[in-house]
Amino acid sequence: MRDLAGDLRHLSINTVTLRKQLALPAIIEACAARGIGAVCPWRDQVQAASLAAVARQIEDSDLAVSGYCRGGFFPAADAAGLRTALEDNRKAVDEAKALGAACLVLVVGSLPGALAGTPASKDIGLARNQVRDGIAATLEYARSVGMPLAIEPLHPMQAAERACINTLEHALDLCDALDPPRTGAIGVAVDIYHCWWDPKLASQIARAGAQRLLAYHVCDWLVPTRDLLNDRGMMGDGIVELRKVRAHIEAAGYTGAIEIEIFSDHWWSRPADEVLDTCIARYRTVV
Amino acid sequence: MRDLAGDLRHLSINTVTLRKQLALPAIIEACAARGIGAVCPWRDQVQAASLAAVARQIEDSDLAVSGYCRGGFFPAADAAGLRTALEDNRKAVDEAKALGAACLVLVVGSLPGALAGTPASKDIGLARNQVRDGIAATLEYARSVGMPLAIEPLHPMQAAERACINTLEHALDLCDALDPPRTGAIGVAVDIYHCWWDPKLASQIARAGAQRLLAYHVCDWLVPTRDLLNDRGMMGDGIVELRKVRAHIEAAGYTGAIEIEIFSDHWWSRPADEVLDTCIARYRTVV
Repeated sequence: MRDLAGDLRHLSINTVTLRKQLALPAIIEACAARGIGAVCPWRDQVQAASLAAVARQIEDSDLAVSGYCRGGFFPAADAAGLRTALEDNRKAVDEAKALGAACLVLVVGSLPGALAGTPASKDIGLARNQVRDGIAATLEYARSVGMPLAIEPLHPMQAAERACINTLEHALDLCDALDPPRTGAIGVAVDIYHCWWDPKLASQIARAGAQRLLAYHVCDWLVPTRDLLNDRGMMGDGIVELRKVRAHIEAAGYTGAIEIEIFSDHWWSRPADEVLDTCIARYRTVV
Repeated sequence: MRDLAGDLRHLSINTVTLRKQLALPAIIEACAARGIGAVCPWRDQVQAASLAAVARQIEDSDLAVSGYCRGGFFPAADAAGLRTALEDNRKAVDEAKALGAACLVLVVGSLPGALAGTPASKDIGLARNQVRDGIAATLEYARSVGMPLAIEPLHPMQAAERACINTLEHALDLCDALDPPRTGAIGVAVDIYHCWWDPKLASQIARAGAQRLLAYHVCDWLVPTRDLLNDRGMMGDGIVELRKVRAHIEAAGYTGAIEIEIFSDHWWSRPADEVLDTCIARYRTVV
């Protein structure tokens, strides 16, 4: 396993972690000032700051971009909605490319309207078919510009609203269907928050291998967890066996960034410096 | 598929559904008065009313007992804790037998101490081994008295505290390891709240077949779900494709009760008559 206690070049900060404290340029500046190796920005944060300016700042700061969050949300209630989603994903691919991202992370979507609390359908099988077709169409374009797509399986508690792909096995089945020769054009983003509970986690990480492991996200699972979305823990504060999972990830050949992504009302309420310094300390000691 | 619109003999009420409104004898009385075919009582409710009295009342009321909730919680931090859990499960088997239950439902447990908010371990692999050993020991006794054990996979969001078996596939793998000839001594309780999201739900229900399908629990998954434990929906109020799942269950050979089990702060706040009448109406029309 890689030694993380020394420098921070393998560390990436997913910028959602500080979204309530700072605008994206300030997050990037704070990461660069600490010698952190990479960031993974969110689309709305980039749009608020302008794509060209963010791309320039990242390049000038000598930061890598471990991923771009996010494409996806393919399902829709009608043909026009499906088309709009495809166009939007094409734009996301272009933005990821402009930022020099290692991959475009896909939160694939699920029942149309569910995220707004008004599901137009209960047919998760149909949503899964729309996701497959949407990724297939996006992959064609992404491949042509050289932007890998990373399917992120989300926790099953987010299956109705955010993603109808909820296990690594399901995501990898889809990768195999869309890219049998394992070209690296499509793979997975493994987030321990979403996947820690899965009895097949180790076997599916091994199955994924270096060609399919495009991103690795860490935080922790708190006991108790009080909210289905915004109660992620800082590494070490919960029950995930972080070192054991990273050992599997690296044994499978992954050499990319270790990305910290924390959606948390608690950590959003703390000063940005405290959050970043805690991330770094935990990265060195418990990840 | 069976026609549920007519009589209520296939309907069972899991008594947790009314636990805040009524004591167990009153729940049993209300179910019997409506022509409901079965109940599934909880252990603490039975203990509060006395086992012998409850057994007599159920027999006099001509009700079936679709299951007994619950055995399990096998993992422990030390040998004494493991032994205590086994003794307690043996008692639960005896109580289930005294009630004439169709099966003892197992919520298998997970990280010791996690339910109390103080996990003594992060080793979910160890917990899974303890669960396997605990079920194996309990099965030997349960088989000798003729009480089937039903492993209930819980939703992955309850994996740290309540059950480290979270998919039907995992539960069935364990059944196959412990009872290769499929004698009916061990099987699964399929609860749509816990399993609805699983892309392998249909295939694993088919794999289970009549020998392994010991119980079928219904409620609904609300969008949004606001609590990880007590925000289950009334059938028809959420996004689960209830008829589609029941079609799979019955195609696999299941002929047992359809058990309504609703943990819900909302429904616990409503009058018992309203809850039961709503259960019956939804059972006839949407289940």
